[in-house]
Amino acid sequence: MPNYHKLEAKVIQELKDIANKIRIHSITSTQAAKSGHPTSCSSIAEILSVLFFHTMRYKVSVPRDPSSDRFVLSKGHAAPALYAAWAEAGLFPVADLQNLRKFNSDLEGHPTPRLSFVDVGTGSLGQGLAIAGGMAFVGKNYDKANYRVYCLIGDGESAEGSIWESIHFASIYKLDNICIIFDVNRLGQSQETSMGHDVENYRRKLEAFGVHAIIVDGHDVEELVKAFHTAANTKGKPTAIVAKTLKGKNFPKIENLDNWHGKPLGAESDRVIEHLNTLIKNSGPLQVHPQKPLKDDVVPVDITNIKLTSPPDYKIGDNVATRVAYGTALVKIAQNNPRVIALDGDMKNSTFSESLLKFDAARYVECFIAEQSLVGTAIGAACRDRTVPFVSTFACFLTRAFDQIRMGAISQTNVNFVGSHCGVSIGEDGPSQMALEDLAMFRAVNGSTIFYPADAVATERAIELAANTKGITFTRVNRPTTSVIYANDFVFAVGKANVILSSPKDQVVLIGGGITLQESIAAAKQLEKAGIHARVIDPFTVKPLDKETIINNIKEVGGRAIVTEDHYYEGGLGDAVFAATALERNIIVKHLAIGELPRSGQPNVLLDHYGISAKHIVLAAEEILKL
Amino acid sequence: MPNYHKLEAKVIQELKDIANKIRIHSITSTQAAKSGHPTSCSSIAEILSVLFFHTMRYKVSVPRDPSSDRFVLSKGHAAPALYAAWAEAGLFPVADLQNLRKFNSDLEGHPTPRLSFVDVGTGSLGQGLAIAGGMAFVGKNYDKANYRVYCLIGDGESAEGSIWESIHFASIYKLDNICIIFDVNRLGQSQETSMGHDVENYRRKLEAFGVHAIIVDGHDVEELVKAFHTAANTKGKPTAIVAKTLKGKNFPKIENLDNWHGKPLGAESDRVIEHLNTLIKNSGPLQVHPQKPLKDDVVPVDITNIKLTSPPDYKIGDNVATRVAYGTALVKIAQNNPRVIALDGDMKNSTFSESLLKFDAARYVECFIAEQSLVGTAIGAACRDRTVPFVSTFACFLTRAFDQIRMGAISQTNVNFVGSHCGVSIGEDGPSQMALEDLAMFRAVNGSTIFYPADAVATERAIELAANTKGITFTRVNRPTTSVIYANDFVFAVGKANVILSSPKDQVVLIGGGITLQESIAAAKQLEKAGIHARVIDPFTVKPLDKETIINNIKEVGGRAIVTEDHYYEGGLGDAVFAATALERNIIVKHLAIGELPRSGQPNVLLDHYGISAKHIVLAAEEILKL
Repeated sequence: MPNYHKLEAKVIQELKDIANKIRIHSITSTQAAKSGHPTSCSSIAEILSVLFFHTMRYKVSVPRDPSSDRFVLSKGHAAPALYAAWAEAGLFPVADLQNLRKFNSDLEGHPTPRLSFVDVGTGSLGQGLAIAGGMAFVGKNYDKANYRVYCLIGDGESAEGSIWESIHFASIYKLDNICIIFDVNRLGQSQETSMGHDVENYRRKLEAFGVHAIIVDGHDVEELVKAFHTAANTKGKPTAIVAKTLKGKNFPKIENLDNWHGKPLGAESDRVIEHLNTLIKNSGPLQVHPQKPLKDDVVPVDITNIKLTSPPDYKIGDNVATRVAYGTALVKIAQNNPRVIALDGDMKNSTFSESLLKFDAARYVECFIAEQSLVGTAIGAACRDRTVPFVSTFACFLTRAFDQIRMGAISQTNVNFVGSHCGVSIGEDGPSQMALEDLAMFRAVNGSTIFYPADAVATERAIELAANTKGITFTRVNRPTTSVIYANDFVFAVGKANVILSSPKDQVVLIGGGITLQESIAAAKQLEKAGIHARVIDPFTVKPLDKETIINNIKEVGGRAIVTEDHYYEGGLGDAVFAATALERNIIVKHLAIGELPRSGQPNVLLDHYGISAKHIVLAAEEILKL
Repeated sequence: MPNYHKLEAKVIQELKDIANKIRIHSITSTQAAKSGHPTSCSSIAEILSVLFFHTMRYKVSVPRDPSSDRFVLSKGHAAPALYAAWAEAGLFPVADLQNLRKFNSDLEGHPTPRLSFVDVGTGSLGQGLAIAGGMAFVGKNYDKANYRVYCLIGDGESAEGSIWESIHFASIYKLDNICIIFDVNRLGQSQETSMGHDVENYRRKLEAFGVHAIIVDGHDVEELVKAFHTAANTKGKPTAIVAKTLKGKNFPKIENLDNWHGKPLGAESDRVIEHLNTLIKNSGPLQVHPQKPLKDDVVPVDITNIKLTSPPDYKIGDNVATRVAYGTALVKIAQNNPRVIALDGDMKNSTFSESLLKFDAARYVECFIAEQSLVGTAIGAACRDRTVPFVSTFACFLTRAFDQIRMGAISQTNVNFVGSHCGVSIGEDGPSQMALEDLAMFRAVNGSTIFYPADAVATERAIELAANTKGITFTRVNRPTTSVIYANDFVFAVGKANVILSSPKDQVVLIGGGITLQESIAAAKQLEKAGIHARVIDPFTVKPLDKETIINNIKEVGGRAIVTEDHYYEGGLGDAVFAATALERNIIVKHLAIGELPRSGQPNVLLDHYGISAKHIVLAAEEILKL
């Protein structure tokens, strides 16, 4: 380990001064906003001061510089302190801090990437570390660069299981380029945390999880500097600094007291600021400065314009599961772009993400059965446009990470999700393994794009499009095989529905996705025999839905449509079609979906029993023609 | 500790025999089903044999007897072994096992409470322990009874953070009536687990989390018997038995090998069964038998017909936040029924669940910042109708437990959720704290009931109704105050919408919930001045939605409605109204909701900026009248 050089007394005092300035800014900005968390800022003031003015190597003027160290504030409610640190570092005027939480300012209540210096949104606790782990994994394995990742976690949020998933991830992948800081200030929102100030308890847990743990007084800048030095020189495992701190540190009569969470200091603020000012020795310009990276060692990558290396190669009528086509497409885009990666939660032989593992093991990240970590890691890996991550598992298990996905939208992430085993068509495994609410979940994610490919050709193109689509994408794939209906050269687009069967005599439109599009086609053929002409539309993307094509076609056939989906009634394709047609008079839409808790059984038995098979679509068509 | 009595050799052999019979049943039933997980059954065969024929005290003929020990199979894919254990114990004929996974059998692919001997659905990994913890908490603190709770966890699922949340819960509440068994069979679905057979690694983690850990050979019935004896006599902390096992134990050429997850043995099965039969020494009737409870010490409780002890007591026009009314109602129903409890994740002073803490601290369960544990604990507490749990936190953080909530529906649980701080109306805290997808999530939960009370009176009645409603309920409450609009004696019902403003001249229906119902009323008053007559409807429950009232009223005003909600466009109240009116010609519905990622700001500024304030409803009404 390189020698640790003791700090000069002047530097120590300046780091202390900066910490107290951060405290003052946190008080005044939350006063101006009339809300916020100044006491939660106060406990981390020295940690931020040391990181931003001594330890981290970064470019103040280029906050998302690829070679710079990363910082993730997992305890997002301490945002005012983060903002104050960047202002003191010189990124923007200190005076701007007074715009905290105002509508016309990006200095929001919790950090979001609207700010140039924030990579991801935080504020839902326990999520920062998975993201930091994703960044560190990329730094170590793909960028192979020197940047380090710092993640500051509150003690309250260390009760979140997601934290321990992420510690496990960092440990098994030996991420020695990550440094985790626990701000153990003892107090949660409404009472003391379960572990209080028992820092040895944290140490025991961290060491059991394979982490190098260092306990420090979190308000002692020398101890902090030394601990960060040790962390940077600890190889083969992540280091966690367990910082014993006081909530409201240096706020007399508030420090370490309950009932001060999330409150501006109000009438107490002048008194406290006066006291803080007495602690600041150098009132003039700073002598310590942020440290630049030692070298710009991160190579540029281009993650735009990703293509399948070869077009889909199927015959019409081939029976191929769309989940298998996902694996095929994944390899093709990975051949095209070295930054395409796949992450899975021990489901790779069911989701077919293992196709990438077989093609290039280095680009497959096994996240084990820990879906929150899986999703957070992918969000971290996508930061600063370093990779194009595809996350797969059974679609139902993505519900485990809904909060992470929701926050991913706030983070403006470009993660692509692929959920297999959707609906009752999975069969015998039963309801716990059936995704019946996944479309509802992903539709409600801000800015999401949802692909619901009907066959293998559509799946390969969906994956290609997903790789190039900004925001969160979700591709819903089936367990059983479906028949290839598209020609290999068919051109797909986001938001463009495809008319599969059509004649001028059509009386009703049938809409479905995946399995239920296939059932709709089968129903149309049966109806044809009964002299009823049905038009079949594949929406291809559930969101955005091709409103124009859908409305125009329904109008052309006389205003009748049937939407069938292997999903609960609420929130899926049916609701999307209803929403698209809500302002149209003379359009009626009948909806066939799963209306009760399904059970185990053979796929075809279940499709039929729960009313979404071709037989039921035929009956529905006959009924709707009477309305 | 009472002395441990060494087992007779005959008993040991019989327990081994039962284990091997469980193995044979697991093979033959999955063969018949052509799917399933026999190797995952094999690793737990001795654990089940010892539990069901030696350790557990339960009544075979009354599987949900309140005084009996509980067993939760967290690794639900080993269902065939569980079914075999109950069949061997005598609950149903062994021959029935051959109906595994068939549509007409309740012996589903993963356990569900359709079976009399299953308390909760499992199969989404990592969820069983929180549930077992809830059962144990109730046993220790409310039932104050002798029953013990056993939870069998797979090693793969121990990567789930939710497991560590639950271990933390069991540890801090000193649940010495719970016994956790880790089946460390080394192999996950697609590869070895991260910890393999390193049982000392498990021990270190468990001990760091405050758990008494015992390592055993999971195939040695004597070691297991002794470990369960020690566990039962260990006070003040939970015990975990770390059982080193082999996947496919006693299946020659399959045992401990990869690539045998989730597959029937096929052509190998005859050979393996032949081998297993050679291990069974007593082919006649069993000498060992399930053990009955020592005493029936659980008192009956009645959780039906729960009432507010006093009616709502407000004046029309009072400004009261619905979250505050939640706390008031909670205390009133808790006064009425001693089994009403509240659980929260360190948000009690924001959600007002602290009202119950103040009234009766014993009935408030602090789950700290661990929402998956929070929800799972409540599901466990609700089992066997022992309590009426209310779970509260910010509504957005309930997304953290979507998978648990989804599984809760499969478990037929009666947990009541209360989500505060919904929508942009929370203001300055910003998007990470705003629930904008909660209605989409809860609508997609099978059998759910969703209350969206507009004022304090409606909230108190919603909570009273929720306490008596089967299935999952969700009550959406606001952070800011809303004006009381209902008389204290107003009668509410699930699925009954209330017409708030109405005249024969009405030209448009305005529908909203909570804050947006208030905005709709304000809009109606403004429209009145412009000579436009608007009818205002409060749906009260978003699910079930009062289709009849809504359709009839919209028809009466000429087929025009405006739905406004503080939620993203997808999946919420708007979609519910669209679905209700989808088969009606000549009804058009305009939807005002949040269409972009919101930011921090004052509540009223945000309502206005994102287009859901009275002003926008007025404009929408003027527009829709032109259509």
